[in-house]
Amino acid sequence: MLGRMQDWPLTVDRILDHAKSWHGDREIVSRSVEGPIVRTTYAEAHIRAKRVSNVLKGLGIGHGDRVATLAWNTARHLETWYGIMGIGAICHTLNPRLFAEQLVYIINHAEDQIIFTDLTFLPILAQIRDQIPTVKHIIVFSDDGHMSQDLPGALCYETLVNDASADCAWGGFEENTPAGLCYTSGTTGNPKGVLYSHRSNFLHTLVTMGTDVLGVSATDTVLPVVPMFHANAWGIAFSAPGVGAKLVMPGPKLDGASIHELLESEQVTFSAAVPTVWQMLLGHLRQTNGKLTSLKRVVIGGSAVPEAIVRGFRDEFGVDVTHAWGMTETSPLGTLATPNHRIAGLDAESQLKFKLKQGRPPIGIDLKLEDDEGKLLPRDGHTFGRLLVKGPFVVGEYFRGDGGQILDADGFFDTGDVATLDSDGVMQITDRSKDVIKSGGEWISSIEIENIAAGHEKAELAAVIGVFHPKWDERPLLLVKLKPGEQGTKAEFLAFLEGKIAKWWTPDDVVFVDDIPLGATGKIDKKLIRQRMADYVLPST
Amino acid sequence: MLGRMQDWPLTVDRILDHAKSWHGDREIVSRSVEGPIVRTTYAEAHIRAKRVSNVLKGLGIGHGDRVATLAWNTARHLETWYGIMGIGAICHTLNPRLFAEQLVYIINHAEDQIIFTDLTFLPILAQIRDQIPTVKHIIVFSDDGHMSQDLPGALCYETLVNDASADCAWGGFEENTPAGLCYTSGTTGNPKGVLYSHRSNFLHTLVTMGTDVLGVSATDTVLPVVPMFHANAWGIAFSAPGVGAKLVMPGPKLDGASIHELLESEQVTFSAAVPTVWQMLLGHLRQTNGKLTSLKRVVIGGSAVPEAIVRGFRDEFGVDVTHAWGMTETSPLGTLATPNHRIAGLDAESQLKFKLKQGRPPIGIDLKLEDDEGKLLPRDGHTFGRLLVKGPFVVGEYFRGDGGQILDADGFFDTGDVATLDSDGVMQITDRSKDVIKSGGEWISSIEIENIAAGHEKAELAAVIGVFHPKWDERPLLLVKLKPGEQGTKAEFLAFLEGKIAKWWTPDDVVFVDDIPLGATGKIDKKLIRQRMADYVLPST
Repeated sequence: MLGRMQDWPLTVDRILDHAKSWHGDREIVSRSVEGPIVRTTYAEAHIRAKRVSNVLKGLGIGHGDRVATLAWNTARHLETWYGIMGIGAICHTLNPRLFAEQLVYIINHAEDQIIFTDLTFLPILAQIRDQIPTVKHIIVFSDDGHMSQDLPGALCYETLVNDASADCAWGGFEENTPAGLCYTSGTTGNPKGVLYSHRSNFLHTLVTMGTDVLGVSATDTVLPVVPMFHANAWGIAFSAPGVGAKLVMPGPKLDGASIHELLESEQVTFSAAVPTVWQMLLGHLRQTNGKLTSLKRVVIGGSAVPEAIVRGFRDEFGVDVTHAWGMTETSPLGTLATPNHRIAGLDAESQLKFKLKQGRPPIGIDLKLEDDEGKLLPRDGHTFGRLLVKGPFVVGEYFRGDGGQILDADGFFDTGDVATLDSDGVMQITDRSKDVIKSGGEWISSIEIENIAAGHEKAELAAVIGVFHPKWDERPLLLVKLKPGEQGTKAEFLAFLEGKIAKWWTPDDVVFVDDIPLGATGKIDKKLIRQRMADYVLPST
Repeated sequence: MLGRMQDWPLTVDRILDHAKSWHGDREIVSRSVEGPIVRTTYAEAHIRAKRVSNVLKGLGIGHGDRVATLAWNTARHLETWYGIMGIGAICHTLNPRLFAEQLVYIINHAEDQIIFTDLTFLPILAQIRDQIPTVKHIIVFSDDGHMSQDLPGALCYETLVNDASADCAWGGFEENTPAGLCYTSGTTGNPKGVLYSHRSNFLHTLVTMGTDVLGVSATDTVLPVVPMFHANAWGIAFSAPGVGAKLVMPGPKLDGASIHELLESEQVTFSAAVPTVWQMLLGHLRQTNGKLTSLKRVVIGGSAVPEAIVRGFRDEFGVDVTHAWGMTETSPLGTLATPNHRIAGLDAESQLKFKLKQGRPPIGIDLKLEDDEGKLLPRDGHTFGRLLVKGPFVVGEYFRGDGGQILDADGFFDTGDVATLDSDGVMQITDRSKDVIKSGGEWISSIEIENIAAGHEKAELAAVIGVFHPKWDERPLLLVKLKPGEQGTKAEFLAFLEGKIAKWWTPDDVVFVDDIPLGATGKIDKKLIRQRMADYVLPST
């Protein structure tokens, strides 16, 4: 026997349909790549998205075909998403921060047939155009007057959209149909694709609407600084129209002054971005004595939020910070540091400790912490282990089966992160599992040591890696890049760490280097450091 | 091609699993039928619910079998719900306010095998015991010391639960498996069953968690006065554990003093009930000069909320009222009068007009307004028509196919309500479609006229029905029950209506009656009035 409720597949076209029907005059405000602020509404975006669908159909795109976007957050990009997904094609978001050869690999692996892009990215595309043979058309988010000749044969978005009919049926396919494709940065091996379904995106959207998750409302004005090519803009491209929030799209300008201008001119109440964006904003506000007159809450993820940002927002601007964790493989929101009742009852200073953790999972996400043997670890706030995750918007396998079977026997996905869980169920990332140092069967957090070492007044950057040790398997090695003109000794850095970490975590050696390499996302590139230090041998003690 | 996200069926057992794992020590506080306040936690309720599952299995209950509850809101009732649903059996909630013959009909129609019940309802069950042959066992929510001998052969809940193992696998079936069964009151013909699926309940839960819907948080303490037998307690039996809110269950005592005591002693922040409950509470507070020191928000539905309640809560107690509409067939939440950005920008007095409407649909609910010919009607705030609804937690067909095909060609269900939609998309119920008066092709709201007439100082109750008219098909007839000792005339009541309604809405006659019958839910029983007035003929004019 089955239930007798309506058959209503969870397809994301219904989200923009809802926004049109019930919040049709709500605005989408974009800073365009051409410069001016452009204003539209959900009702207009709905019509234009339907036109995009017809443009795609006219160019031969059908169910399951991959259509890429290489673009900033704008209303045009949003229309294009819904135009692609509405007809059952797959929206493949390309990250412009990738190296050209990675873009080539990803486009060919996905067999993208069309790329929608901004004027900004035509030089990159011109450079790789002859290496991406599946791509039949490149469509430029521009009008006739602004079209560039940088890429011969490229089509003009506004011309195509204006010529297309707005009459197009969306949906009507089953909810497990793929909707989006996003490749992980691929720190080992080639990038791998996460193939989101309509169902997974829709469920992620409903979960993020919860008060304890993103919790946006029809009364909010939402500025997603986090790019749409970065794991679905943390779902905001779906949740903002889903509730009828005003959407403010920052386009190409993510510097402090530009973001501040939009926050104030559009009276933004809610925003989301990685820590570096907020650091730039806070820096700008302090320099210019700027104010935040409408902003109430920011969500910060992508990497661990520094305490100074949480304090700065809270004490100087009255803005509440919610720390979040997730990954491309989790659609992306996995945990948020919204307080439970016990934490909410603490004073602001005591709450800070929890605000700096990555947070609690909402319903739809289950987490577990395991050691290398698969034994469950206690939720004591200090034992750390592999973080595994399960849920209806968590990856089941990568696109084209890359990487093979990736779930454990209970259906959990290994995040590659190492974390703790405390007695409130609040999770804190302590390391990446490939960076954690395994010494005599115990784990040492490389990140914790390097964060402390980086606080030494002579240090510009610090990194910790594990190196081979005949007795302990691995021991920590501290690399320090000194500030210009500084001199340092191993002894003074080890003395600096003393008392701040467990004695057995003390690095066996300190090496002063001219360069600590950073990856494309601004994180320390430990893979490269390990390559550079491949011949290093610990001094015998 | 399908998406590659995890297969994770939306089954409601995962909701209590989540509460146990991430909010295990959060309390469920119940006013027991025996009297004392009883405290438990989600972790303990989870264990006991598993024991209930084993009790059921031991009694031969399996997938798809119907197990009924006839009970107040308590932790035991909640454990039993999850215990039934977790093993794929169907939880059939019986409404104790039904007449005995309706209960008999419903139990036999559902073929319930077991009934869980409170001590309160043993006399009803004793009365009908020999008319419900499918029922093998009656289990009483009580312990050995409190067991009643009113119903020979009845089993004791605590004894069974304590003897059962807590080891039981939940879920593992497909998400369209039925989870719950609830019969509509059946104003025409026999009651009809709505068979909720795990999927529909889970999706309703996610939607209700939205900030603009119920929006409960882990930091909330929630008191559902609305009974679990009344359309899933508006979803709170799922949404409170889903977010880890503290749950306060009022048991059998719904009077103003008892509710006030719980609101204060447990520091409740959020509650939900029908208007009469709030009227009793406000009356009690005014009599006793009582305060509400923690309550922030109440949701009111079931019937239209009087303005005096909204004002009373707002002005005397600083509590925000959210008006809601729904029905058993919509799981039940369909619309909520949470403000959009335009309404939120109005002053409190101007917002009141919207707070008295039934509200906006969240994503997952679509509404349309049609005339009798199926033509879409404008959203102008005054044209009223049939209200139809569609969505993944809206009924598709009734249990056992009763009533046949109930959806229109576009898959919409006719609510039987007549409503308006305004330019903000805010819906207001104006009548039931069987009560609306169709005069010369135009519709007249019976409710609007009778609400005004009831405001006449001499009137105790007023009702309006349509009666046959040779030219106009139907014309309104006003029935008035005068206050004791009052005398009234047709002329003075018609004069009272003048200027308050359109001239052509003016009733063709006024009849003074000794009795205006009310149904089981306290609403005017127009079916009975129409029967009584079957021989009435309008005076010729």
